[in-house]
Amino acid sequence: MVDGGRFAAKRVVGDRVAVEADCFADGHDVIAVRLKWRREDDTQWKEVPMVPVGNDRWRAVFEPESSGRWYYTVGAWVDRFLTWHHDFERRIDEADLRLAARVGAELIEQAAGRASGDDARRLAHWASQLGAAVERQAAAAEVRALALDDDLGRIAARYPDRSLEFTFPVELPLVVDRERARFSSWYEFFPRSASREAGRHGTFKDCEAMLPYVAEMGFDVVYFPPIHPVGRVNRKGKNNTLLAASDDVGSPWAIGAEEGGHKSVHVPLGTLADFEKLVARAHEFGIEIALDIAYQCAPDHPYVKKHPAWFRWRPDGTVQYAENPPKKYQDIYPFDFESEQWEQMWCELTDVMEFWIGSGVKIFRVDNPHTKAFPFWEWSITQLKRKYPDVLFLSEAFTRPKVMHRLAKLGFTQSYTYFAWRNTKQELTDYFTELAHGPGREYFRPNVWPNTPDILTEALQFGGRPVFMSRLVLAATLSASYGIYGPAYEHLEAAPREPGAEEYLNSEKYELKQWNLTRPDSLAPFIARVNLIRRENPALHDNASLRFLSIDNPQIIAYLKSTAALDNVVICVVNLDPHHRQSGWLTVDLAELGIDPATPFQVHDLLTDAHFLWQGSSNYVEIDPQRAPAHVFRLRRRLRREQDFDYFM
Amino acid sequence: MVDGGRFAAKRVVGDRVAVEADCFADGHDVIAVRLKWRREDDTQWKEVPMVPVGNDRWRAVFEPESSGRWYYTVGAWVDRFLTWHHDFERRIDEADLRLAARVGAELIEQAAGRASGDDARRLAHWASQLGAAVERQAAAAEVRALALDDDLGRIAARYPDRSLEFTFPVELPLVVDRERARFSSWYEFFPRSASREAGRHGTFKDCEAMLPYVAEMGFDVVYFPPIHPVGRVNRKGKNNTLLAASDDVGSPWAIGAEEGGHKSVHVPLGTLADFEKLVARAHEFGIEIALDIAYQCAPDHPYVKKHPAWFRWRPDGTVQYAENPPKKYQDIYPFDFESEQWEQMWCELTDVMEFWIGSGVKIFRVDNPHTKAFPFWEWSITQLKRKYPDVLFLSEAFTRPKVMHRLAKLGFTQSYTYFAWRNTKQELTDYFTELAHGPGREYFRPNVWPNTPDILTEALQFGGRPVFMSRLVLAATLSASYGIYGPAYEHLEAAPREPGAEEYLNSEKYELKQWNLTRPDSLAPFIARVNLIRRENPALHDNASLRFLSIDNPQIIAYLKSTAALDNVVICVVNLDPHHRQSGWLTVDLAELGIDPATPFQVHDLLTDAHFLWQGSSNYVEIDPQRAPAHVFRLRRRLRREQDFDYFM
Repeated sequence: MVDGGRFAAKRVVGDRVAVEADCFADGHDVIAVRLKWRREDDTQWKEVPMVPVGNDRWRAVFEPESSGRWYYTVGAWVDRFLTWHHDFERRIDEADLRLAARVGAELIEQAAGRASGDDARRLAHWASQLGAAVERQAAAAEVRALALDDDLGRIAARYPDRSLEFTFPVELPLVVDRERARFSSWYEFFPRSASREAGRHGTFKDCEAMLPYVAEMGFDVVYFPPIHPVGRVNRKGKNNTLLAASDDVGSPWAIGAEEGGHKSVHVPLGTLADFEKLVARAHEFGIEIALDIAYQCAPDHPYVKKHPAWFRWRPDGTVQYAENPPKKYQDIYPFDFESEQWEQMWCELTDVMEFWIGSGVKIFRVDNPHTKAFPFWEWSITQLKRKYPDVLFLSEAFTRPKVMHRLAKLGFTQSYTYFAWRNTKQELTDYFTELAHGPGREYFRPNVWPNTPDILTEALQFGGRPVFMSRLVLAATLSASYGIYGPAYEHLEAAPREPGAEEYLNSEKYELKQWNLTRPDSLAPFIARVNLIRRENPALHDNASLRFLSIDNPQIIAYLKSTAALDNVVICVVNLDPHHRQSGWLTVDLAELGIDPATPFQVHDLLTDAHFLWQGSSNYVEIDPQRAPAHVFRLRRRLRREQDFDYFM
Repeated sequence: MVDGGRFAAKRVVGDRVAVEADCFADGHDVIAVRLKWRREDDTQWKEVPMVPVGNDRWRAVFEPESSGRWYYTVGAWVDRFLTWHHDFERRIDEADLRLAARVGAELIEQAAGRASGDDARRLAHWASQLGAAVERQAAAAEVRALALDDDLGRIAARYPDRSLEFTFPVELPLVVDRERARFSSWYEFFPRSASREAGRHGTFKDCEAMLPYVAEMGFDVVYFPPIHPVGRVNRKGKNNTLLAASDDVGSPWAIGAEEGGHKSVHVPLGTLADFEKLVARAHEFGIEIALDIAYQCAPDHPYVKKHPAWFRWRPDGTVQYAENPPKKYQDIYPFDFESEQWEQMWCELTDVMEFWIGSGVKIFRVDNPHTKAFPFWEWSITQLKRKYPDVLFLSEAFTRPKVMHRLAKLGFTQSYTYFAWRNTKQELTDYFTELAHGPGREYFRPNVWPNTPDILTEALQFGGRPVFMSRLVLAATLSASYGIYGPAYEHLEAAPREPGAEEYLNSEKYELKQWNLTRPDSLAPFIARVNLIRRENPALHDNASLRFLSIDNPQIIAYLKSTAALDNVVICVVNLDPHHRQSGWLTVDLAELGIDPATPFQVHDLLTDAHFLWQGSSNYVEIDPQRAPAHVFRLRRRLRREQDFDYFM
């Protein structure tokens, strides 16, 4: 229940949704409780009895079998028949027993009236039998046996009097997504840098040629910065300079030019048909193309002329560009969400996404959603998901925590996080404990990125190869969804625009790049190994099981993820010190994992394929960052022993 | 906020009510936030600006100045003027500055339109000045200085455009009581046992004679079991036997006989006028009389004949008595809250309380409210408190936790607790931490009783005088409200009806008693001392400050209470072992109390008047249960030193 049902919780298809409710009534009467649920477009509730689990808490589970918006709630009533039955079982006095049997016969007759067919006939017969037994002064034992008939009692209980049922007044919303909402591996690259020829603008065809490279690394989402015509007015030059040279390509986030806007393709990249072909080709590799949704315009975007009311105008007759004084972004016009024509504008902006859905796009990475109206997102995402329940939205907001949480509540499927700036053991432990177990766990799905085109952290600038490796392992194992901006990442790009800056030097945001995808020092094979481990280990497909383990070295962080059935248990141990070999004693709660402390067990390092023999709750680990800065252990339950072999017997 | 505003939080007159809210908007605009509150009968909100305290949390305080039902909520809006001002301060570019000044002049002119009188004139003048300065190309520094005029800015901020203000959609209820709701010392006795002559039925006049005794002990509420005519049909005999002898007085909870019911006085006690005189007399001693409200009837209660529809009838034409099979209570007919005539019945039951309010009663102890309909209590208590905001209700429900909490939410002012069965250090620590700091802290006010006529705990049966003393100190200091059933308590009555039972032998519930109030072994002087300490130390008037202290002996429990200003700090140390002297090292967080660890300070044991010199955070305590099983220390901030005396200089 998110904010009392104001917002939806989130699950994926196949999840078992456990619902608990506190249900009780005054007095000693027995109550019955039902969990009710329905898909948004069903008018009929399905329901299942809830069972008491102690302290007036009741529980039941349902499985939403398709993506979409669901609702659930709880109904309960004081059950006269069950109360009567409960009291009757305890009665001793024979006169009371007879009187109570008469009351019971009435209740059963009423149940018969609510039943039909065979059940109605059997209950009516039972009621008259019970009445007759009392009438003819049958022996108390006979009356008792008849009244407490198990089979008939179960039938009667199926036809309760629900006329005074109380239903929890809020229908609680639940957004059910397809599985990729929870488990996804993202790879961001600039299509215009996909060319293999120096100086030639990349095309969608070049992107097609890159698909095998990306697929080999094991990513399942490729995310492109905006692919629309790039504005010419106030275009930014290389390294974000104010004046562009004539051959500068500008920032793809300065969207729109004479040729078109958010529904057009930047001409040098190819045609819409080329794009659709790329989407289809990617699909064959098990990869989805995610598009960037950046609701802002270059000054020469067609919207500016066609819909002047969608922008804010300054007293000098110019459009108000984006600013955060004293900073100015003259190449960007923000939409005015308080425009008089907001309805028309909201529909068009939503239509932009629907346009690309029409071309096969099902994932959108939304640029700076926190600078657009909250109600717009709630309305737009809800509308789109109603029509296309499999469409996913990633919120790119690196802002205050409550704003980021609000966006997730409003409907964003996944959210960027502060991961890039969480480096120490304590920081990582606190942050991922909050993400996995804090109140956001029901609606905020983290998607963690060690780098982006805007974020080259100081850890990466100074840490060298071991930090690129350890940050990748952390991202890929701490979070079920993660992404990198490549090929900068696998090529260990670490030069900032200037000392202290977090931007890349010669950033792809403002110029074309050429990448040599066969560099021998590339991290690509390592990334491929990590993504393979992710795919093969269901423990890593969710964050709910994450727990940090104790290890007596502040430079080493260790954590465990497991499936509910404990048939897949992964323990990650990462050396956060890129300079020195570190070691320590790792503590694992064996009882929790069902491992006998006296029996040795095997851990298999999936990164290096090394096998270690452990016993008891405390075991030694040592990590040399120059070789591999982490272990990703899969727990093998037990070692084979002499008894396991044929020749033993 | 209790259950999203479904129920009221509780405070007393004079409390400062701190309200915090998370408030934020999309984008970078500056918002303004107001706390609004009103008494139920005011239509107009009062309001005060909330201030940001970090992480998008805003805070303000209001003081409800009278008892009654209050409402509060929060309103916020994006403030165009403040946003403009915030940005303007940061502008550098001169062209921008001029354009922004023109925008500002417009905003100020709009503010002038919302203002009146002098403010309107000053703002209009400011706007035109600012416009003119831009017009005549005044120097940027001049434009800046004029636009950022502090005084005028403050005036403009007082006339915001609130047309798009968002107000939190729930008006959150707050019940404000008089102070006794939070801090009260209860003494229960049976009026019919107040007689000083053996065998004579006590009267209200005898009760008057007992008032000095009760006042000397320092109690401020005297609570009487029901004072109504006692039923004769199926009357219970001594020790709860089924057949009463002809001279047995029966249980006062079997209410109603030929002479009258819930609005009548049991004839042997005196008249209604006698009762009212007693109430007035008690008032002179600073004591209130609390009555028992037990909504149930003896079989000969006049209601049974007059309102047969208010009861449940069995098929044999008899009224259904109270039962919890196989237990039967044939002397008690419960009301049927599902009666067809429920409205008439609810009105009459409420009228019962209003009748006694008419005789000067302002506190009701309600018997087993959990066996009556929840909606009745909510309706009835809300009705009564609307008319008589100073009336208080104590819920006597020893049932499942969620039911007890529900009753408190429905409107009961105070609630009985599980204190009687919490004896060990761990139990007491857990339970009182939950009471003081758990979610119930906003609505569940504990009233803790070491004994009642129904509850003689095994701790009291076996522990002797030290346990009677320690349980009293625990009750009186752990909880701002507490009570005892006397004179059984001060006379150390400890004999159960049978081994293993929790009822008193020869319980006053079924027979008259004679008490010698001048017994030399009575605990009365000790109780008087404890209640005096309570009155004189405001730290003990509330539970919010309660924190447990660490002491290295599991038989000793220690805790601290303080006023917000730290001008009254009380540390209680109780030996839970009635048999042995116990000692240990007590740890106090001196920084929290503003005490220098290098400077000695004094603690004054208010129970024994002994003074101890302490220094640093760890100090030694030793308690002999045979002398006094507890210390109740008042912290004296510092010792006088040589510099404090005239002769030093």
